Amino acid sequence: MNQIESLEKLINYFSNLPSVGAKTAQRYAYFILNQPSSFVKGFADALVEANTNIHYCKVCGNFTDKEVCDLCSKRSSKTICVVKEPKDVLAIEKVKEFEGQYHVLHGTLSPLDNRGPDDIRIKELLQRVQQGGVEEVIMATNPDVEGEATAMYIGKLLKPFGIKVTRLSQGVSMGSDIEYADEVTLARALEDRKEI
Amino acid sequence: MNQIESLEKLINYFSNLPSVGAKTAQRYAYFILNQPSSFVKGFADALVEANTNIHYCKVCGNFTDKEVCDLCSKRSSKTICVVKEPKDVLAIEKVKEFEGQYHVLHGTLSPLDNRGPDDIRIKELLQRVQQGGVEEVIMATNPDVEGEATAMYIGKLLKPFGIKVTRLSQGVSMGSDIEYADEVTLARALEDRKEI
Repeated sequence: MNQIESLEKLINYFSNLPSVGAKTAQRYAYFILNQPSSFVKGFADALVEANTNIHYCKVCGNFTDKEVCDLCSKRSSKTICVVKEPKDVLAIEKVKEFEGQYHVLHGTLSPLDNRGPDDIRIKELLQRVQQGGVEEVIMATNPDVEGEATAMYIGKLLKPFGIKVTRLSQGVSMGSDIEYADEVTLARALEDRKEI
Repeated sequence: MNQIESLEKLINYFSNLPSVGAKTAQRYAYFILNQPSSFVKGFADALVEANTNIHYCKVCGNFTDKEVCDLCSKRSSKTICVVKEPKDVLAIEKVKEFEGQYHVLHGTLSPLDNRGPDDIRIKELLQRVQQGGVEEVIMATNPDVEGEATAMYIGKLLKPFGIKVTRLSQGVSMGSDIEYADEVTLARALEDRKEI
């Protein structure tokens, strides 16, 4: 193929993005070629700027461009919601129900991937609880094997502090069809049934 | 939502890419936040570099970083393959069957979108043919309404030059199932049937 070097390079960069294959990367690159240079310059600056300015919040570990993020500096630390990744914070914020602080673990325990307690931000969570003022920790890790294991593990570590540790409830999704619910979910929904 | 300005900006840029929605753009942006700055710097440079260095080839209209692209400068102009977009050149090059030059129209005739003969590179094609040496023009626009109409239109314009004008054959795809072929394709395949 008679490709142009700088085009090849750009396609390569695009194909590094999550779940972008060769065809999609090529499509993105061709799109860029057709854009005015002001747009492309702005895009390039935004990339570098975001990567330079944004780092982990000293307290919760979420992304921020300040030392302590807005959520940590403005909200009460009585309730801390523990999540796996920054995007989980966005998902929970969208619901507009939770008004406490977050704690981002940046991963879950995963013996298969060689990820132990020291590789995720558990120590930092314990320090926050140790400082006092925390009344409840909500474990909002994913309802999968690793998320469950991580929630259980952290739950045990928090026990000595005598605070409330909760877990997101599990059951059938709202608006879904019982017929298509998987067995594990349905079993859990039955087990955790509530009186109405 | 408590978003960070520079993150917001990056997500916005990503969501300009073709068929990238808010969720995907967010995913790309978070990916960038987690990359080493050397990678992000390289990505940004590649964007600007490609956009600056690459332009249309003076002869065929394909993307190139030279004045005349490699395909035009190295190959015989006896046969010219006319395509809609630069990515069609890549597709045909992959087959390794065609050894002539290309002509990229950058669009097809589309009265509905207000795109007439002067909006795509038809004039440039006629100039190339006028210069002489061209023996065949292969119309390789897409087998859809606009592609067909464009091929017919250009075919008529080329008639006075007395050169061969051909069109990609149409019929059932290799490896496909007759049962699932659409009616138009099947009708065309029957009509254009070949003796074996």
